[in-house]
Amino acid sequence: MKTLLLIGMGAGDPEHITVQAINALNRADVFFVLDKGQTTHDLVRLRLEICQRYIREPSYRVVQVSDPKRDSSTPSYTAGVEHWHAQRAEVFTRLIEDQLAEGECGAFLLWGEPGLYDSTLRILDRVRAHGCNGFDYEVIPGISSVQALAARHRIPLNDIGQPIRITTGRQLSANDLDNVVVMLDAHCSFDAFIEHDVDIYWGAYIGTQDEILIAGKLSQVCDQIKQARAQARQRKGWVMDTYLLRRRT
Amino acid sequence: MKTLLLIGMGAGDPEHITVQAINALNRADVFFVLDKGQTTHDLVRLRLEICQRYIREPSYRVVQVSDPKRDSSTPSYTAGVEHWHAQRAEVFTRLIEDQLAEGECGAFLLWGEPGLYDSTLRILDRVRAHGCNGFDYEVIPGISSVQALAARHRIPLNDIGQPIRITTGRQLSANDLDNVVVMLDAHCSFDAFIEHDVDIYWGAYIGTQDEILIAGKLSQVCDQIKQARAQARQRKGWVMDTYLLRRRT
Repeated sequence: MKTLLLIGMGAGDPEHITVQAINALNRADVFFVLDKGQTTHDLVRLRLEICQRYIREPSYRVVQVSDPKRDSSTPSYTAGVEHWHAQRAEVFTRLIEDQLAEGECGAFLLWGEPGLYDSTLRILDRVRAHGCNGFDYEVIPGISSVQALAARHRIPLNDIGQPIRITTGRQLSANDLDNVVVMLDAHCSFDAFIEHDVDIYWGAYIGTQDEILIAGKLSQVCDQIKQARAQARQRKGWVMDTYLLRRRT
Repeated sequence: MKTLLLIGMGAGDPEHITVQAINALNRADVFFVLDKGQTTHDLVRLRLEICQRYIREPSYRVVQVSDPKRDSSTPSYTAGVEHWHAQRAEVFTRLIEDQLAEGECGAFLLWGEPGLYDSTLRILDRVRAHGCNGFDYEVIPGISSVQALAARHRIPLNDIGQPIRITTGRQLSANDLDNVVVMLDAHCSFDAFIEHDVDIYWGAYIGTQDEILIAGKLSQVCDQIKQARAQARQRKGWVMDTYLLRRRT
C-alpha cells in the first residue's frame, strides 16, 4: 500500500503549521509540488521553506511537475473545471504510479485548508474511480486565509448566533451581504455593492511579509483596496486576497 | 501596557496546535481558564495538558475562574446572550485589572478557532467600551471543529465553486440543505430533515480518543447518530458535535 498525505500548510505564515502537519511532513518520503507557472513560484518557495524548516531528517525527495492550467475561456465554468480536474487526475495518477514505491508515503503541501476550495480531494476520488486504487490517504487540516483574515483584523467571523457564508467572487450576490467571506475573487466583486451599508475587512498575502490589511465602510475604502490590490499585483506578479463583508448595524 | 493573547487551541487533538500558538503559549505569564462547571472539566484538562506539553519553561501562573452560566430559560435568545456577555465582561475586567501586572502577557486558550462562535473577542470589545483600556490583544487562529470534521471524513467543505454555509442548530432551515455545516446543536436539528435527499457527515469529540464519526444518507443514519450521541453524552457528561449536510446530486 502507498499513502498520500494532504497537508494543510496554512495561509502564508510558516508558523501557521500545526504539530500534526509537522509530524506528517516528517513521515513523507516524497513531496509532490505542482507549479502553476511564474505567478506561483513564491508559493512553491514557501512549500520548500516549510520542508526545510520543519523536517528533522532531510532525506525526502521533491518531485515538481507543471500543474495543468485551467482554461478560463471555456464558456461553462463547470465544464472548464471538469476538464481541468481530468487533466490533473492524469498527472496525479502518474505521480502515484511512477514516483511512489510500495510502502512509501507521498505528501501534498496544500495552501490553507485542504477542505476549502481546494481540488486535491476531488481529484483523488477521480484517480481512484479510474482504477488507480493502490493507495490510502489522510487529510491534515490547516489554517485557512479566512481564519488568518479574521485573526489579523481581530474580528469574529460571525455575528452572535448568526450564520456565516463563505463564497467566491463569482457567486457573491446582494443577498449575502449580512455576513459573507469571499475567496477566489479575481475581479474585486465587492465593487458592485458600494451602495450598500456594509463594512469590508480585506487582506492580501495574509500572514506574509507582504501582508496588506484594509478595513472600513465599503463605500469609503473600496477605491483604496482596488488600488492597493492592483499595485501589489503589479509588483509581485500575483495576488491572493480574501475579505469579509458585513452589514452595518 | 498589558497584552492578552487569544489562542486557538484546535478542536480536541493537542496536535492541532500551530507553531504560532506554541510561540504565543511561551510568551504568556498567566493563563486564564474559565471553567463552565462539571461538563467542561475535560476541556479544562485539555488546556492544562497543552500548557504542560508545549511550554518550555513552566513558570506560568494559571488563574481559574467560574464562567458565568448563560441562562437558557430567557425568552429572547439575544437578550440571554447579551446578559451573559455583560457578566463575562465583568469577570474579564477583574482578571485583567487584578491578575495581570503592567507589562505582563495573559492568555486565553480557546477551543477551536477564536473567530468562530466564540465570544471572547466580543467580550473584550465590551471590556474596553466600559473603560478598561490598558491592554492590547492579539488573535492566533486555530483548527476549528469544522475543519477537523472535514479532514476526518476526508471530504471537501464545498462543492465545486459553490458557497458554504456555517450555522447553528437553532438557525438551520430547509433552505440551507444544499451544503451546510452545523455547530452548537444541542437538539439534533438534522432530525427535522430526514425527508430530504441529503447526506450527513457527523462527528463528536473530533480529534480526541473518544471521537465518533458517522456518515451516510440522513434518513438511513439519523437514528444511529441520535443514539450514539445520547449514549456518549450519558457516558461522558457532555458532548460536542458538528456535522455537514449536503444535498445528494
